[in-house]
Amino acid sequence: MNNIHQMQRLQEAAQTNGPLCVGLDTDPSYIPENILSKYKTPMKAVLAYNKALIKKCKPYMCCAKVQIAYYEAMGIEGLKTYAETLKALKEADIPVISDIKRGDIADTAKAYARAHFSGDFETDIITVNPYMGFDTLKPFTEWCSKEKGGKGAFVLLCTSNPGMVDIEHQKLEDGSLLLERVGNELDRIGQEFKAEYPEQTCGPVGAVVGATQTEDALYLRKKYPNTLFLIPGYGAQGGAAEIAGTLLLEAGGVVNSSRGILCAWKKDESLAEKRENGTLTMADITRAAAKAAKFSKKDLTKAKAKVEKKYK
Amino acid sequence: MNNIHQMQRLQEAAQTNGPLCVGLDTDPSYIPENILSKYKTPMKAVLAYNKALIKKCKPYMCCAKVQIAYYEAMGIEGLKTYAETLKALKEADIPVISDIKRGDIADTAKAYARAHFSGDFETDIITVNPYMGFDTLKPFTEWCSKEKGGKGAFVLLCTSNPGMVDIEHQKLEDGSLLLERVGNELDRIGQEFKAEYPEQTCGPVGAVVGATQTEDALYLRKKYPNTLFLIPGYGAQGGAAEIAGTLLLEAGGVVNSSRGILCAWKKDESLAEKRENGTLTMADITRAAAKAAKFSKKDLTKAKAKVEKKYK
Repeated sequence: MNNIHQMQRLQEAAQTNGPLCVGLDTDPSYIPENILSKYKTPMKAVLAYNKALIKKCKPYMCCAKVQIAYYEAMGIEGLKTYAETLKALKEADIPVISDIKRGDIADTAKAYARAHFSGDFETDIITVNPYMGFDTLKPFTEWCSKEKGGKGAFVLLCTSNPGMVDIEHQKLEDGSLLLERVGNELDRIGQEFKAEYPEQTCGPVGAVVGATQTEDALYLRKKYPNTLFLIPGYGAQGGAAEIAGTLLLEAGGVVNSSRGILCAWKKDESLAEKRENGTLTMADITRAAAKAAKFSKKDLTKAKAKVEKKYK
Repeated sequence: MNNIHQMQRLQEAAQTNGPLCVGLDTDPSYIPENILSKYKTPMKAVLAYNKALIKKCKPYMCCAKVQIAYYEAMGIEGLKTYAETLKALKEADIPVISDIKRGDIADTAKAYARAHFSGDFETDIITVNPYMGFDTLKPFTEWCSKEKGGKGAFVLLCTSNPGMVDIEHQKLEDGSLLLERVGNELDRIGQEFKAEYPEQTCGPVGAVVGATQTEDALYLRKKYPNTLFLIPGYGAQGGAAEIAGTLLLEAGGVVNSSRGILCAWKKDESLAEKRENGTLTMADITRAAAKAAKFSKKDLTKAKAKVEKKYK
């Protein structure tokens, strides 16, 4: 039995280490050719890079987000690498969000929850797609109880892609946005968990809110002050630090950067010659990643302070 | 290059062999204890049951649907069994729908598409969750082109669970249902593919429509006459054959039954004694499944004919 749930652990980690979540969406194409070729398979290079990143970026991150799609794309070996990556993060005592965006009904949702909250792919927190309805959330949120180990879940609320207008941002008959129905339900679930975790400062179920819409950011942050946010869209996706800073008010959250860190070697000026000569090493690209993580942590902390000042 | 896409192949298979889709959601708990214990691991029993089912049910089915969640729940070994099951279906020349309900943005969606349209988990048709917006469908539907192998996709339109009212069935400002936005987009995609596949009688992108709502069934079937439907909710989920029959009008579709077939041994009267004694064999439970498949095929064909008569 865990007395604090994983979302509380994450909130505390963000308060101590800053809000940066390092996204290990490690596609083999994010590693230079000359390094890849030194490994028996591309996934062996991915695992080595992940492990090096975990070690070097740890001072600058509060958690890692592992995007399963990139591992699934590499088949069985990819998923073994995914499991190994989760294990390395656990050993480093870093909170892990598995970005799986699963969603299904009844027994099928239960199977997905078992898949990612136990066994080979056991993780701390998952992302969940609510599209099929609120009865499809329960099989996942059940695992947030103390008895089941106090897991956590981030439910998709307001994503960072242009297509979010097609469904999430649709206006309903009563003038509200569809995504508010989801937000309200997450609020309700949060209230429900208060009885079980009275001493904790956030609920075990958070929301995914992209750092791409200034208006939405402030509105959603004020509307759901007790919900922890997982914030994608900062960095490579073009989201500004200021929007992320806004989303970090109230209960706060964690801000993901994946390619901005994984591919930092592509833009690092000190590596220009090695890039051209094809002589980059694993240590080089990891150092560039750690530098980018350090910068992002500072950038986000500054943005958060600026926004806090603005709204105080 | 394939000159017919997988959805056309599926439509033709349904016309020849009837509309039954056998769902291989083979949880180990769907196999009697005494049979499970004969295998080295539960997943070895699952694979043996799947292979036996494929052989014995083939005359009664037009396709199989493999629900990945049950395999994912068993970790790496589960996903190896999933890959083996897909291979066995391919060897038997049975069209396969991989029920994965993935959905994500940009490069992540591309990774999921690669994961399930190539490599270890290559399949014919997948299911897709459209929640994050229509830009998230493209990375999947790209694979429907001739050049990419003519794959197919069923997008969630109107699911069979009670919670479908929470999002899918919400009324928008203009009085239409949210799910109609999805349906209209699928229609538009279908029109787009007509240029590439002018001679084919259906588009490569279909819709998931549950057999649980009589009103919706008729409305959606008439509104989207050219879209092939994947129809869950028949049998174990309580959906009546008549609703399925309605959904089989126009472009038609395939009707899934999973537990109704996999667990037929639990209700087969001729197996009562063996069930009680714990002496069931793999041949027994496979025979019960094939009997249930034969019955379902007949039941659905009759229901379809009845509905056709009613509306002609």
